[in-house]
Parts: sequence; structure tokens; C-alpha cells
Amino acid sequence: MVTATYLIHDVKNDLHKKAEAIALGLTIGSWTDLPELDKKQLEKHKGDVLEVKVLDEDSRTNQFLNKKLTKGIVKIAYPSANFSADLPAILTTVFGKLSLDGEVKLIDLEFDEKLKKHFPGPKFGVEGIRAKLNVYERPLLMSIFKGAIGRDLSYLKKQMRNQLLGGIDLVKDDEILFENPLTPFEERLKVNLEAVQEVYQETGHKSLYAINLTGRTSELRDRARRAAELGANALLFNVFAYGLDVLQELAEDKQINIPIMAHPAVSGALTTSPFYGFSHQLLLGKLLRFTGADFVLFPSPYGSVALERNAALGIKEELLKEDGSLKRAIPVPSAGIHPGLTEHLFHDFGVDSIINAGGGVHGHPNGAAAGGEAFRAAIDAVVAGKSLDESDNEQLQIALKLWGYKKVTVG
Amino acid sequence: MVTATYLIHDVKNDLHKKAEAIALGLTIGSWTDLPELDKKQLEKHKGDVLEVKVLDEDSRTNQFLNKKLTKGIVKIAYPSANFSADLPAILTTVFGKLSLDGEVKLIDLEFDEKLKKHFPGPKFGVEGIRAKLNVYERPLLMSIFKGAIGRDLSYLKKQMRNQLLGGIDLVKDDEILFENPLTPFEERLKVNLEAVQEVYQETGHKSLYAINLTGRTSELRDRARRAAELGANALLFNVFAYGLDVLQELAEDKQINIPIMAHPAVSGALTTSPFYGFSHQLLLGKLLRFTGADFVLFPSPYGSVALERNAALGIKEELLKEDGSLKRAIPVPSAGIHPGLTEHLFHDFGVDSIINAGGGVHGHPNGAAAGGEAFRAAIDAVVAGKSLDESDNEQLQIALKLWGYKKVTVG
Repeated sequence: MVTATYLIHDVKNDLHKKAEAIALGLTIGSWTDLPELDKKQLEKHKGDVLEVKVLDEDSRTNQFLNKKLTKGIVKIAYPSANFSADLPAILTTVFGKLSLDGEVKLIDLEFDEKLKKHFPGPKFGVEGIRAKLNVYERPLLMSIFKGAIGRDLSYLKKQMRNQLLGGIDLVKDDEILFENPLTPFEERLKVNLEAVQEVYQETGHKSLYAINLTGRTSELRDRARRAAELGANALLFNVFAYGLDVLQELAEDKQINIPIMAHPAVSGALTTSPFYGFSHQLLLGKLLRFTGADFVLFPSPYGSVALERNAALGIKEELLKEDGSLKRAIPVPSAGIHPGLTEHLFHDFGVDSIINAGGGVHGHPNGAAAGGEAFRAAIDAVVAGKSLDESDNEQLQIALKLWGYKKVTVG
Repeated sequence: MVTATYLIHDVKNDLHKKAEAIALGLTIGSWTDLPELDKKQLEKHKGDVLEVKVLDEDSRTNQFLNKKLTKGIVKIAYPSANFSADLPAILTTVFGKLSLDGEVKLIDLEFDEKLKKHFPGPKFGVEGIRAKLNVYERPLLMSIFKGAIGRDLSYLKKQMRNQLLGGIDLVKDDEILFENPLTPFEERLKVNLEAVQEVYQETGHKSLYAINLTGRTSELRDRARRAAELGANALLFNVFAYGLDVLQELAEDKQINIPIMAHPAVSGALTTSPFYGFSHQLLLGKLLRFTGADFVLFPSPYGSVALERNAALGIKEELLKEDGSLKRAIPVPSAGIHPGLTEHLFHDFGVDSIINAGGGVHGHPNGAAAGGEAFRAAIDAVVAGKSLDESDNEQLQIALKLWGYKKVTVG
């Protein structure tokens, strides 16, 4: 059984009736006019309305949509007998034609234990990623290649080294870097892994590189397997440009034995509206964890490309909450991050999260290595419960001067 | 090169600056602070702002979003050198992180001739489908199985026969019918094709059955090939529960030599908001045609689950407009269709469209065969330029009495 929770704004004032119509329309079609024999046969396929909660009228919304709407939360259970145990079938059932039916937003999905077993969850999760890096007691630090398009392998390798030398734990490809003649997939993987290896030998610092897995859908599996063979230690994947089931099949593949980082590219089209689409918590939180993302990137609540704080915390909650069977995925609040936000990131997302910066690393006046160092000093200070402006790290103080320091105010 | 057109509502009042920031941010990152040598190297990768048109301020939107927004249309060209020639790469480039950046809706994509060659378009299109049915001068008529969940093969076959006996040209599976023990894929295909064959032998009426192609992403190709081998003559596909590239790979497969019907399930999550996501015309029109849908279902402008008329006409326009290289896809405006709407459908969607009904066929007081007959009589009348109430077909008159007759008023 899957239970769907919807936020509904309906033009009619009877949400119970609306809910019943959905529960029947998305399952057996009709009920009251069925012969008794048919009722018996179809009973186990019938959608069930579990809850209808009418919310306060929202005059701002009514004004905007220019109609008087009844707002409410509706929960409907759909029997597993109605669909195959895959996400395309489940989404089509619970939000197929319903997604086209006025102001309806899918807020949550709950899977029963039997159905849940069909989802792999992260292969590595928080603990597996920490084991790879041998880092346990602090948030991890990630950075992103800057301006990688049109650049060659030596340029990327140099940038990679600079990032890693500052103590960065993970570097991800730019999500808009695709297969190209200057830095083709296998070559790019090779030189970046060389940089990882070199820095490890020079400094003892372990790190991971997430290469962008791209191309036609049917090629992804072999390309990912090939990457794993060549020693890749993480994959970046623009899951919403493909499909959640594509991610799940990659996560289920035993030969792709490396963690997968889900990028939120294109997902704004599905989550941003208050009336339509999916809640952030469901799409970027629960569903990415269920389908096997080890890392999940999403907009932080701090930058110019920002998520509302509750939405960002909701994603984190879904990724990290304890669950009997699925590993925890690690949240990566991104965009607009500089060292002066470290206290806020730690406060909001906790120790099991990744601090991820692009400009906040590369834009440091003394370069990317100094940018990484500033972040690492900030992380150390925050974990030790110290104020950032007390740190004696020079690069951190330069960063705070440039970008500011936003203290967490309690209460 | 791909040119993207966006509808933007921006908090700052300088859309030119915003457009430049997008064009750089989604390509090479920065420009003005680059050394001359780098500029030379990166020039061919730089996004170009082609047009910025500021629209009138929209006070209703400003009030709702509680900010003063500058509204406008922005066109940006992205060089093909930046992405591989596949839709996931293109969508990630033009609407990846941008989809997360406030009020931005992707309105259109234009592909240059070289890039366009990478898209298959429909295998059959309007002409190919007409040739299969040997029907050329009228809109086609389609119906949908009703209440198929929990029913067995003999029930479905009987319903299939009843639909076809009324003269229906195509019958599609319910999109929420998945692999199940009562009507498994191959068996269901077999009995429905038997019904098609029987009715052809009894009456000489040709018809097509679109079976729902479902399951895990990587299984779809083989299942579709198997269906083609078994004589299937059309596939129904919930493309938005999978991914556009998945549809494209099915359409490109030479062994899947049958037309594909794209269902809009889940697409409402991507298209409905006026600020976010994709325009209907782009997503359900252009992109479905480009990626190879032969038929495209979308909500008609008439029912309770309705599209705004201009959006529905925009989809039709994209599917049917002449194009040097791509076949035309056939529009299937759906939901809320009864015989009394035939004149409107013909007026709005023309001869090369499909009239598609569920309740409007099955709900006829004399059953589905009478429902089909009523529609066929309505189509004949409309094509002949006659008023429906002049028809001497009894089933049509019964239908008009039940559901009403909505005449097209000229002017």
C-alpha cells in the first residue's frame, strides 16, 4: 500500500467528496453503482480516503487565482494490488492525471513495509562515505569546479589540486560539464584521480571526486560501471533530467559500487509552486533517499538561489531520519555558501552534512587552497563550539572580512 | 545551438543584467574579469543574450508573491559545444540550476538544424497512423477502457468488442493499468488483438489498440520489442513518470516499429504554474514531438480537468505545424469529451486530431457501442458541415439529450 498526502485547493467546498472522487477515479473508477458481486471483486483495489483536514481559507491565494477555494490536506491509501512495485507506476497512480486536475500538490508518500523493500536506499550513506574519507566528527567539505567548460585536462587538474590542497574532502564536477573533446569522461576521471592520489601522497589528506555521469539513458549503466572499474569514487547525476527510476536502477546495480550524488538540476520545475507539483521534502528528500542517492544537493536557505528554510530542513530531515532498513543519505545544502555561514550550516544541518561551496572557495583572495583552508578552520571552530572570529586562522579571517560572518542567535 | 526563451519575474529591475548573468552562469561562469587569452578560448562557449523584452508589471502577481517584480521575456542562445546532443544535457544546461532560481518558466526551445537531426520525431505521425486505419478525411475516434483494475481478460475483451463495434478507431489501455496477475501484458495484448481482428472480420472496421508499456526503465525496450513481435499496433507510455530521453530511445529503436502514444500523467507537476516549470506548448507539444511521440494526449479545454484554451491550441500547433524533417504528431485533447462537443473539437483541433472519450462512450444510455456510434455520427455530421441536431442518428440524439450540444458560435 502507498499512502499519498495532498495539499488541495478546490473550487467546491466539499473536500470529502473531492477526496472520494480521487480515491475512486485513480483506482476502480466507480463504486456506488456497481453490482454487489463486482463490489466484492473490486474491494481490495479500491482507494481509501484516510483523512480530510480542512485548513483555513487562504485569501491571498483566492485573490490570486480569482476563485474561492477550499484548502485542505487529504490522505488517500492506494492498494499495492493496483500497481507494479516501481516508482513510475506509483507516481502515475497517485499523481498521474491528478497532477493535471487543478490545484493539487503531492506532499508526501508513505510506503508499507512490503513495498518499501523494493527501494534500495543509499549503497553507502553517511557512514559509508565517512569510512571512505576516514572523517567522523565534523561536517564534510565539498567544492565545485569553476568555469570548467572550454578548459582542458591540465587546467582541470590544476584546479583540482588547488581545491584539495586546502583540505577539501570532496570535489564535484560542474553539473553542466558533459562529454566533450577537451575533457572526455575517462581522461577527466584519470587526471582528477591522479590529483586525488598525489595530494594524498603529499599531505595524507583523503578526498573523493564526483564525476558527472551523462549521456543517453541506456548508456548510463555501462558508463558508470566503466567509471567504477577505473577507480572512480563517486558519481554526480542530474537525476531530474532523466528520471527517478533511472537513478534507482543505477543504485541497484552491484557493479556500480560507488556512491551517487544527486543534483537538483531541473527539479525547481517540479517543486517551487505552492499549489502544484511535489513538496521539496518528498522529491528531494524521501524519494531521492529511497531511490538510492548517497548525497543530495539542494539550495541552501542562505544564498540568492535559496530555498525557504523549512523546506531545506524538511529535506535534511527525510535524508537523515533513522529508518530500520534504509541507510541515511547526506544533505548538501548548496549555493551562496561562504565560510561566514558555517555556524548557521552546522546549526541547521548538523554534523552529518556537507558544506559545499563554489565561489566561497574559488573566490578567496588568496585562491582556492586558501578558500578550502578557511572553511576547514571555520568547521573546526564551530565543532569545538568556538566563535569564528576567535579563530587564529588567517585565511578564515580574510574570508570573514570579505563575505561577513553571520552568527547564530539563539532563541 | 539551442535557444531558450524564458518568462522571468525578477526582484531586481534590470532584466538585461539578469539575462547576462544567466547566459554566463550557465556556460563559462564569468567573462569581464577573464584574461584576453582565456576570452579567446572561451568565446565559442559563451551563452548569448538574444533578446530581452520587458513586459507590463503584473500587479496581481506582485501582490501574491509579495514583492515588486519585473516581468519579461528573455532569449538566450547556448552553443552546442557546451553539451552532448541529448535532452538531459540540454535541459540541464538551459534549465538545470536556473529552474531553482526564483520565478523562471521555460517557454520555448529552438534547436538549430544540426542539433535537430539528433531528434527522431514520430516514426508514423499523422499520415502513418491514417494509413494503418485507412481513414483520411475525418478526425479519428478513440476511447479508453473503463474500470480495468481488478478485472479479468474476458471482461476486458468484452469491453474492447463493445467499444470497437461502435466504430471506434483506437482503444487505449487505462494508464493506471500495470502488470498484474489478472491481465498480464502479453495475455492482455493477445485478447485485445483478437477482439480487433474479430471486429474487423465481422464488420470490416479497422482499429488499433494501445497497450500500456510499463515496468522498470531498463525493461521497457525489450517489452516494447516483444509487444511489436506479438503484433501490437500501438503503445501507450507514461513518459513523464520516466523521462523524455526514455521515450526518445524507444522511438529510435528500429525493432519497436509501432506508434507511441504519450500520456500526460504527472506532467501537470511541470506545466501548471504560471511562474515555474515548462510551458505546455514546449513540454507536451514540441518536446514530445521531437522525442518521437506519434500521439499526444493532453487535457481538452472543455472538461472539468481542463487546460486553458490557448495552451491546448499551442500544443496542437507544435504537434501539427509543418517541419522539413519531423513528421507531424496527432493531438488528442482528452477529458470531459462527449458527442455534443464534436463541433468544438473539430473547430479547435481540425481534421488531423483524435476525439477521445471515456465516460462519453461508456456512459451512453445504450452502452459503449451506442456511444461509439453517436460519436461517429457526430463526426460525420461535422465533417459534412451539418449541425448535430440535424443528424438522424438516434444514438447521437440520445447523447445530445443527455450531455447537451455546444454549438460553435462564429465571431
